[in-house]
Amino acid sequence: MTKGKTIWILGLPSSGKTTLGRELFEDLKIWGWDVEHFDGDDLRTTICKNLGFTRKDRIENVRRVRYMCNLLNSHGIWVVVSFITPYQEMRDKNRKFIEDYTEIWANAPLEVCIKRDTKGIYNKGKDGSIEFVTGISDDFDNPKNSDVICYTDREGIDESVEKILRVVFKNRYKLSK
Amino acid sequence: MTKGKTIWILGLPSSGKTTLGRELFEDLKIWGWDVEHFDGDDLRTTICKNLGFTRKDRIENVRRVRYMCNLLNSHGIWVVVSFITPYQEMRDKNRKFIEDYTEIWANAPLEVCIKRDTKGIYNKGKDGSIEFVTGISDDFDNPKNSDVICYTDREGIDESVEKILRVVFKNRYKLSK
Repeated sequence: MTKGKTIWILGLPSSGKTTLGRELFEDLKIWGWDVEHFDGDDLRTTICKNLGFTRKDRIENVRRVRYMCNLLNSHGIWVVVSFITPYQEMRDKNRKFIEDYTEIWANAPLEVCIKRDTKGIYNKGKDGSIEFVTGISDDFDNPKNSDVICYTDREGIDESVEKILRVVFKNRYKLSK
Repeated sequence: MTKGKTIWILGLPSSGKTTLGRELFEDLKIWGWDVEHFDGDDLRTTICKNLGFTRKDRIENVRRVRYMCNLLNSHGIWVVVSFITPYQEMRDKNRKFIEDYTEIWANAPLEVCIKRDTKGIYNKGKDGSIEFVTGISDDFDNPKNSDVICYTDREGIDESVEKILRVVFKNRYKLSK
């Protein structure tokens, strides 16, 4: 059986990871791939239910998601992940332990993300009602070696998806919409 | 896509769940099914790494495995589970939340399991070096409505597998070895 691929989208809260992940998921499905989308918020209601936002918990979180990616990939299922993945050590482990791994950085400036604040996380971080907000009170290491950088503040979604799929399919692909 | 099935083998420690699960897994693979085997011990090194053996932890353990079964089943992958699953409430939830669920009770008398004690668990339970040993210091509710009961102290493995597959395939199957 052909193994599946993992496309891992990381970035600050409100950087557009979920939007990008959903679009990618839908495109891959249309092409007939068997694909799963893991989104940070969903994961926290399923296999990561008991985990919080400390460094240790975030690392355990990513470890579990990595396990799931490997499991699904081994059965030929593709996985798109939308997950903050704030520390470089997590990404290094992803690259080491996931066989077919493409890393995407949804890169929007912090100010833009704070302005969007889709889920009100930054606001809650500022007024202290939640601890450990990535970008405010918890680290986000700038990725060292992402395979694709999507500038989600100034690229259209189609442009970002196009960039990602070019890399995933090693340039033997052209989006036509 | 045809959904996968979950075959969930439960029973006391050393009741033969793992042996039965492996055999079933191999048989299903030979027939061309895409199948995964989740064994209690393996799970405790992967998605259930941080969980212990308290009632609460055991319930969370099973909840996660159930999630994994549903996920894989939804992609057409069969899952064989070998897991103590000591409380009836866990099994009731399995039946409620897993679409195609067949429950197998690996049923050997406690004395036989204690004598086998494949992993030395009962001994450790007796001398107090581990707490919460199912059958000794923690409950094992006798299953109320398992679909198949395998008497692993007096049935051969082929006989047990045959019984299971007959039920799973609704009698439209005959093992020929």
